[in-house]
Amino acid sequence: MKDLATTLDLGSGPAMRARRQIFNVCEQDKITLDIAALRTANPDHWMKAAAIRALTLDAVAAANSGHSGMPMGMADVATVLFEKHLNFDPKMPEWPDRDRFILSAGHGSMLLYSLMYLTGYEDMPLEQIKDFRQWGAKTAGHPEFGHARGIETTTGPLGQGIANSVGFAIAEEIQRATWGKKIIDHNTYVIAGDGCLMEGVSHEAIGLAGMQKLSHLIVLFDNNNITIDGTVDMADVTDQNARFAAAGWHVQAIDGHDPQAIDAAITAAKADPRPSMIACKTHIAIGHAAQDTSKGHGALTDPAQLQSAKEVYGWNYGPFEVPADIKSQWEAIGARGAQTRADWEARFATLSGTKQAEFKRIFAGEAPKKLSATIRALKKQITESQPKVATRKSSEMTLEVINPIMAETIGGSADLTGSNNTKTADLGVFNPDNRKGRYIYYGVREHGMAAAMNGMALHGGAKPYGGTFMCFTDYARGAMRLSALMGVPATYVMTHDSIGLGEDGPTHQPVEHLAMMRATPNTHVFRPADTVETAESWELALTSQSTPSVLCLSRQGLPTVRTEHKTKNLTAQGAYVLADATGKRQAILMATGSEVSVALAARDLLQSDGIGTRVVSMPCWELFAAQDESYRRKVLPAGPVRVGIEAGVRFGWDQWLLGERGNAKKAGFVGMQSFGASAPAEVLFEKFGITAEDTAAQVKALLGL
Amino acid sequence: MKDLATTLDLGSGPAMRARRQIFNVCEQDKITLDIAALRTANPDHWMKAAAIRALTLDAVAAANSGHSGMPMGMADVATVLFEKHLNFDPKMPEWPDRDRFILSAGHGSMLLYSLMYLTGYEDMPLEQIKDFRQWGAKTAGHPEFGHARGIETTTGPLGQGIANSVGFAIAEEIQRATWGKKIIDHNTYVIAGDGCLMEGVSHEAIGLAGMQKLSHLIVLFDNNNITIDGTVDMADVTDQNARFAAAGWHVQAIDGHDPQAIDAAITAAKADPRPSMIACKTHIAIGHAAQDTSKGHGALTDPAQLQSAKEVYGWNYGPFEVPADIKSQWEAIGARGAQTRADWEARFATLSGTKQAEFKRIFAGEAPKKLSATIRALKKQITESQPKVATRKSSEMTLEVINPIMAETIGGSADLTGSNNTKTADLGVFNPDNRKGRYIYYGVREHGMAAAMNGMALHGGAKPYGGTFMCFTDYARGAMRLSALMGVPATYVMTHDSIGLGEDGPTHQPVEHLAMMRATPNTHVFRPADTVETAESWELALTSQSTPSVLCLSRQGLPTVRTEHKTKNLTAQGAYVLADATGKRQAILMATGSEVSVALAARDLLQSDGIGTRVVSMPCWELFAAQDESYRRKVLPAGPVRVGIEAGVRFGWDQWLLGERGNAKKAGFVGMQSFGASAPAEVLFEKFGITAEDTAAQVKALLGL
Repeated sequence: MKDLATTLDLGSGPAMRARRQIFNVCEQDKITLDIAALRTANPDHWMKAAAIRALTLDAVAAANSGHSGMPMGMADVATVLFEKHLNFDPKMPEWPDRDRFILSAGHGSMLLYSLMYLTGYEDMPLEQIKDFRQWGAKTAGHPEFGHARGIETTTGPLGQGIANSVGFAIAEEIQRATWGKKIIDHNTYVIAGDGCLMEGVSHEAIGLAGMQKLSHLIVLFDNNNITIDGTVDMADVTDQNARFAAAGWHVQAIDGHDPQAIDAAITAAKADPRPSMIACKTHIAIGHAAQDTSKGHGALTDPAQLQSAKEVYGWNYGPFEVPADIKSQWEAIGARGAQTRADWEARFATLSGTKQAEFKRIFAGEAPKKLSATIRALKKQITESQPKVATRKSSEMTLEVINPIMAETIGGSADLTGSNNTKTADLGVFNPDNRKGRYIYYGVREHGMAAAMNGMALHGGAKPYGGTFMCFTDYARGAMRLSALMGVPATYVMTHDSIGLGEDGPTHQPVEHLAMMRATPNTHVFRPADTVETAESWELALTSQSTPSVLCLSRQGLPTVRTEHKTKNLTAQGAYVLADATGKRQAILMATGSEVSVALAARDLLQSDGIGTRVVSMPCWELFAAQDESYRRKVLPAGPVRVGIEAGVRFGWDQWLLGERGNAKKAGFVGMQSFGASAPAEVLFEKFGITAEDTAAQVKALLGL
Repeated sequence: MKDLATTLDLGSGPAMRARRQIFNVCEQDKITLDIAALRTANPDHWMKAAAIRALTLDAVAAANSGHSGMPMGMADVATVLFEKHLNFDPKMPEWPDRDRFILSAGHGSMLLYSLMYLTGYEDMPLEQIKDFRQWGAKTAGHPEFGHARGIETTTGPLGQGIANSVGFAIAEEIQRATWGKKIIDHNTYVIAGDGCLMEGVSHEAIGLAGMQKLSHLIVLFDNNNITIDGTVDMADVTDQNARFAAAGWHVQAIDGHDPQAIDAAITAAKADPRPSMIACKTHIAIGHAAQDTSKGHGALTDPAQLQSAKEVYGWNYGPFEVPADIKSQWEAIGARGAQTRADWEARFATLSGTKQAEFKRIFAGEAPKKLSATIRALKKQITESQPKVATRKSSEMTLEVINPIMAETIGGSADLTGSNNTKTADLGVFNPDNRKGRYIYYGVREHGMAAAMNGMALHGGAKPYGGTFMCFTDYARGAMRLSALMGVPATYVMTHDSIGLGEDGPTHQPVEHLAMMRATPNTHVFRPADTVETAESWELALTSQSTPSVLCLSRQGLPTVRTEHKTKNLTAQGAYVLADATGKRQAILMATGSEVSVALAARDLLQSDGIGTRVVSMPCWELFAAQDESYRRKVLPAGPVRVGIEAGVRFGWDQWLLGERGNAKKAGFVGMQSFGASAPAEVLFEKFGITAEDTAAQVKALLGL
């Protein structure tokens, strides 16, 4: 066995000071890391943690890629967490009242996979560990939600996990208040690294959690002072403890290799009424030649160094070998949750049948049966009253009928509540004094909001929606992409969806954002034309099980274009004939959102000139693309001139204008070719040439008239 | 005159305590706001500030939109800053050694416009103020860079200004070290609000500035406790003073309506060796009925209330009227900088002719004359040696020849230096001990990096480039869009540009990002196929004056496809014929980046079957679209089957496949239809069907063979 002696900055955490006896205390809070002493002091703990370290080294070496250092550094913290605190049941990973464990530092995926294998998750046999990072394996480079039961969220893009966790904790708070502690009462644990904490989204998450006093949220900070480029202080000198404290958190600093200190700190964190951050001073790649270096962050594959590290651990086993006694100790930890889960099930069984069914429905992510009838009734009323309102207002009108029948909706806005029209009368505001509130003032935190929405949806029992100006989709992109990748049915309420925003100018006017979102796989981008289409879009968003929805809504008032009531949800077809040509069909106008009424007005002009013109409303391209060929052909037959109308860039439109039996010589587009400008909305539509007259002129030109 | 008495939380700033005598001190650090006393205590100051308030009220009322409250609240701070501290010359707004003033809270644009009008900027006559937020006016809803000389940066999307300012301050530090204090020695002042400070990007900016000890950066925080949704504590309870201190900043807290306290605080901030934050406790919409409310944040247009506020101010003048004595006091402030500027010019004239010319070239943003020859020499060498390297490595090889001849480049990476290949041997690292260093370890801060790059470029004298994984374009989107909107020629080095990234998996593999960036106006998206195209792309990026460039670079090694030396920059044409058909031209393969060599291999397969196949390399769509019709027709003639090959989604490709004389029945695409997966890169290309064989098969199917 080798001795590796390095120094460790203890920080000033009081919990730590009590644990110094096993270390050689040096001046200035520095201690010598003595692995031999660590092994001797807590031999059982040590070997359980060593199993994680050895599996990590073996899996990364086999894959010849990955990140060894973090699982090695945080193995002690994770071992104590799983052994003494985490409520989980590997045999039933979806048990609703389990504690959630979020690996925000997702590159350290082997930590999670090792823990899942060791504690006996069925989706994580040893073969999966051996197949780390290979095609078809559940053990992807970063943890991927849906690959193996027990992975709570997809992480890897830094900061997302800690920001998700705020959503997990909010959902837990609301459900605890709603269902009572007997049914919902669990913690959310997060492991986050320096990288997570440098990302901007961590600031938004930490601020939101601090204000909301999310006492069941506990962050274990892997304070190893190493990033890819080198030591953290090459880029950051932030006092993380002071930073979290400034945001209202309970803060502790401990030695992350001291099991008693870890246990004591987690116990204290659970007891504190604030969210809790435990800065765990650790050695990345502990015991390896690359310990405490940025090299240690990556893939450690050198066979001799690997073997040497195992010797330091006292781990005398072959690749992927975990001796039976250590495996059975881990399995005992995994088995610990079975009784807790059974107790919970017994408590759940005491609920009334109605309540049980409601709980199951909500956790299955199913919309209530009456949603459909409720939406139909609204549509009927709208086709009769035919209001001229902005679709953001239409969205509010829809939420006013949805929220009362769906206790699982959790609304909010990134400080634009009155503009996004996201708050309805009955929701109540979620805050430390009202845990049953279902509306969240997210603050000016678009990215944090989106990531929290992911967390709520993943927690289960919640249907989150949140609003901002559509242009600020830019700020939320990192989390919105993860909604799509994970298949999380969150709903983004993106208002002020074009130059129709007006005077605020080009920084606030999306022109490329529809293209950006439509280019993203597994995303439903709805741009409804009026209140009826908005209601239909909401119905689709709320019944979606595995696709996020983006509602792109106007600032400006729009006439009701769906003036005839249809029980069928036409938006579900993605596009449909809104007004057909009178006489010979010479032109098809295709439009979305606020430009559908422009198309209808253009049709009037063209028909009055004897040009038979069809108007196709296209509220959701993705759903139209998913229709069968014969339906698409019916809506977009070959022959007529086609003009697309949308107050955004043409990028992507050629799929419909030139594709689908179109013809480049007979296709045109009315939209934006640049960023917008600051002026009243009606002036902008005029100046940028997005009018019925411009459309009609383009059709005539294409017809050679 | 009316008395408006409200309470003000003083905080615990020591500078403030000294200034209490004019207030009625209440218990718990609360004071009564007594506007009459403020007027009396500093009548000259008061009336100058009142001019800003009155102009703001009048302009917003005339526009019937805008944000009145912030300029009203911060008028005192801005007045003291401009009167006593800011070095500026309205007659020469671009004077290189001026202080920079960044209005991060850009919605308060009337503050900036008022100051510019009052101090005599030629681009800001009273007519512009009257035309606030109208079509064609320089006074857009939010400050737009380029609209009026003197607007340093475009703000409005919250947090961007404060993050830009870090780049301004870094550029100043480097240039001060390089040129000496006689030539460069100025401050960057920022006004930021609660919204800016809640945004994640502010965390990244503050952390970077604190670590870098940017002593010439001074942030004036408009601490008014109001956001759009209500009081800040509805969403945030962060102790901002503690937060900035935790990041290494000098922090003061003052009453933002007390001119002496403001002056003293700015003086202290300038003297401190750290970046400085001054929390200015203010009343939003001071003196108006909407004071201290979220209503006060927006457009205050009620005529009676407007009149009443003016009475509170003692401002007895008509709309847009500034009495001559007050205007001339302001103009005297504006005139103050003329001598300072003249002194600077005299010092500048003492530089050698060569140095003066170099300074002017760099500040004009012009590339050195020898850049072109340097790139040509590299290309020649590459066509001879024909290395097989990743284009990220090609980029490094190019930077190795560029950086020594362009002292203005400032490189960096968001903690992926070794992966992005952004650091060259000669740059040196910029940090508090080496102010001449030109390489920045940005930390895990993609958004902060991009925003800082905008600031450096806008400061002048710097050509910033910065790297991250292309997937994390998502994190930087907010700032990258502003590069495009402002026309800032920053260069984004986005490596690992497809599933070629391999095992890290779908969270790290861009598929929609090329579409996202191509859809964005005024953005050059380069995806070079080999080292020659990479060198050409860099040349175009560095000679760009008003368009940002994104270099999309491979992780994996790529063969040299440009094996014949051409002095001409073929990438400048956007697309070109790389290999023409032998025999009858039956197919055109169009590809970018790593898929160009796939296209060439497919061509070999097809030609060996007697199918004449042209390969078109398309490194930059935007530049190809800008070519004249006849060139585009030559590259993409009508007739042959067309297949696009790109390891991303098809979205946008129909422009080239179906448009430009294409034919939907004879067009195909080889690329991604979903997110990627975790596996070795070569397996992924195989599994997702992006190979020469797949391409050849698709061509044959389209040819009916």
